[in-house]
Amino acid sequence: MPTNEEMKATMRAYIERLNAADLEGVLALFAPEATVEDPVGAGVHQGAEALRAFYGMALANNARLRLNGPQVGSSSDVAVMPLVVEVAIPDTPVMQINVIESMRFNDAGQVIEMRAYWGQEDMSMAGA
Amino acid sequence: MPTNEEMKATMRAYIERLNAADLEGVLALFAPEATVEDPVGAGVHQGAEALRAFYGMALANNARLRLNGPQVGSSSDVAVMPLVVEVAIPDTPVMQINVIESMRFNDAGQVIEMRAYWGQEDMSMAGA
Repeated sequence: MPTNEEMKATMRAYIERLNAADLEGVLALFAPEATVEDPVGAGVHQGAEALRAFYGMALANNARLRLNGPQVGSSSDVAVMPLVVEVAIPDTPVMQINVIESMRFNDAGQVIEMRAYWGQEDMSMAGA
Repeated sequence: MPTNEEMKATMRAYIERLNAADLEGVLALFAPEATVEDPVGAGVHQGAEALRAFYGMALANNARLRLNGPQVGSSSDVAVMPLVVEVAIPDTPVMQINVIESMRFNDAGQVIEMRAYWGQEDMSMAGA
């Protein structure tokens, strides 16, 4: 099981790689059978192909992430972080979403489960 | 299923009641069979008697909570919030812990699962 510090570092790498539009770098953080649920309750994407489609869409929508407070660990294989996610879908206003993401890890330090918590009420026009 | 706004309001009531040392008020927010895992990975407290013991201990340790950023909802029955938890165990230094808490709700709007994510690394001396 990775340490809390190792999980937090991987989650910061995830932010940096997404913001650099480094799709391969983002996908390399995940285990082959990993799941992504974003937002929680709206369906689970599982496996390399599904994650490639999901993050490809995120990059097409110019998703940019920044930490919005302290990352936290646990006494288990999961760490959590608050984010502001900015999304600039072409030809629409830039939106900001308050998100809290949890990531669960396998013994190899790969992400096996990402869950992004946010609702419609957590979305606003950027700068509003 | 409660709305995101209803879940967030209950979570703010939880903070207010804990900070007022209102043990009965805190316990009244939970379903009879509810679980509390704090920190995640360190064991689950389940049911009214176990929760009374857990929150009684939290109050004995002068736990005080404040929101440390936006609450977020989901497309499901769960909402999440970042907290700073201050703990003043008698005869020990005051500690601050960065925590992210998720709460899952039943259709009656009662909390059925609380999970508090934090690790040893998220704890510091207050004011340090």
